[in-house]
Amino acid sequence: MIGLFDSGIGGLTVVRALLQKYPNVNFIYLGDTARFPYGNKSKETVERYAVEDAKFVIDKGAKMVIVACNTASSLAMEKLRKTYPGIPFVGVIEPAAKMAVQVSNKSIGVIGTRATVGSGIYDTVIHSLKPQIKVQQKACPLFVPLVEEGMFSDQITKIMVRRYLTSLRQANVESLVLGCTHYPFLQPLLQRFMGNKVNVINSAEAVVQEANDLYPDLFLETPDIHQKIAFTDTSAYNDDLAMRWLGKRVEIISV
Amino acid sequence: MIGLFDSGIGGLTVVRALLQKYPNVNFIYLGDTARFPYGNKSKETVERYAVEDAKFVIDKGAKMVIVACNTASSLAMEKLRKTYPGIPFVGVIEPAAKMAVQVSNKSIGVIGTRATVGSGIYDTVIHSLKPQIKVQQKACPLFVPLVEEGMFSDQITKIMVRRYLTSLRQANVESLVLGCTHYPFLQPLLQRFMGNKVNVINSAEAVVQEANDLYPDLFLETPDIHQKIAFTDTSAYNDDLAMRWLGKRVEIISV
Repeated sequence: MIGLFDSGIGGLTVVRALLQKYPNVNFIYLGDTARFPYGNKSKETVERYAVEDAKFVIDKGAKMVIVACNTASSLAMEKLRKTYPGIPFVGVIEPAAKMAVQVSNKSIGVIGTRATVGSGIYDTVIHSLKPQIKVQQKACPLFVPLVEEGMFSDQITKIMVRRYLTSLRQANVESLVLGCTHYPFLQPLLQRFMGNKVNVINSAEAVVQEANDLYPDLFLETPDIHQKIAFTDTSAYNDDLAMRWLGKRVEIISV
Repeated sequence: MIGLFDSGIGGLTVVRALLQKYPNVNFIYLGDTARFPYGNKSKETVERYAVEDAKFVIDKGAKMVIVACNTASSLAMEKLRKTYPGIPFVGVIEPAAKMAVQVSNKSIGVIGTRATVGSGIYDTVIHSLKPQIKVQQKACPLFVPLVEEGMFSDQITKIMVRRYLTSLRQANVESLVLGCTHYPFLQPLLQRFMGNKVNVINSAEAVVQEANDLYPDLFLETPDIHQKIAFTDTSAYNDDLAMRWLGKRVEIISV
């Protein structure tokens, strides 16, 4: 059983990437919708929430946990590994950073929430992999509410894309890391704005590939498939969204 | 001591209205920034959070509690009164509804979060006061993040005002109730869009007046002034915002 958690529904882009490659894998996903969003919260608070989220999926049988949330991956990995030493945790930061470094020589752009960008984590990880690369970050705090509203190609979203990303386009970055699990929904818009020469790195796809490389046994098909999504807050709106995003029926429970 | 709580920093508009009229009153405000926002959450979750928030300000000595949050005022008043029978609670809904009814004969517009609008509470309260009045509601989910970003008169905010409020303007409503404590920051923009004939009702001012009418003793000046703001999540960003909004120094603690 693979465990995944996120502050809300954004991490479902990771579930979607998982199911696209491994449709019959066992997983339990927790979306902490009752305390969403994590992006503007402090390190201590995000750590506390992440530890509780991980406990839930581990109690449900997860043998490995994908932290499908950039904010928690930025701020809480150390705390998670210390709290649950027997469980491997895979965050979304390193896999996306690696993928970006593979296709870039000079400069990488990173977009994310205020918390992720403020943590400077992508900068640190990318420089540890390729010290000469220039990393330009930009916080895009309105993208999450715009995605939550389903405004994937709205006029407003286009204006905000232009406003947030103009400096990165002018800097001629070679890749753009989508440092927030909500952002893959904006990928077509972002790709169009940045131009075809820029590699847009989807951290959801990157983390699924990394987890499979590290723990292939957990991705084997079993005759008895368990696929569950849990939310800490009940909302028909979220249930609907989950079904539409994943394009298949999975069991949804509330906790 | 007057207690106030909100899901975050929006309720500080109520503190601001309180201090403008009663600069030397004793108060304790709790902003539940660690679990912000409440606007898209379920009734059960909002009730649970509101009960915990109220406990905090009551434990600090509050003899009366202003629920400075429209979502909690819509969903949790009954639960609060049952849980703490000895404490009077004043929500933001009734005072704003009363004020709107006083200046309207035919139709009132109400804007708020998805949770507040979905609860239909303004409709119920306004009709109980003046059954013949037509109430038109509109959820404006992006206004809260726009206010949190300080985009009070941004191009984006203007586009969203037009998009959300055109139907209310076309309906010729006589008053517009700002059914969310964040919205007073958009009051100039909203007033301009709706026109000068429309009474824009600020629920922050309405609730302070109502609380003073009901419990005047708590508004008396004391020689020993205690004015405190507490946040459940520490963030220099929030502390800054609080100081700027209130225009004076108050003690800020984190819990």
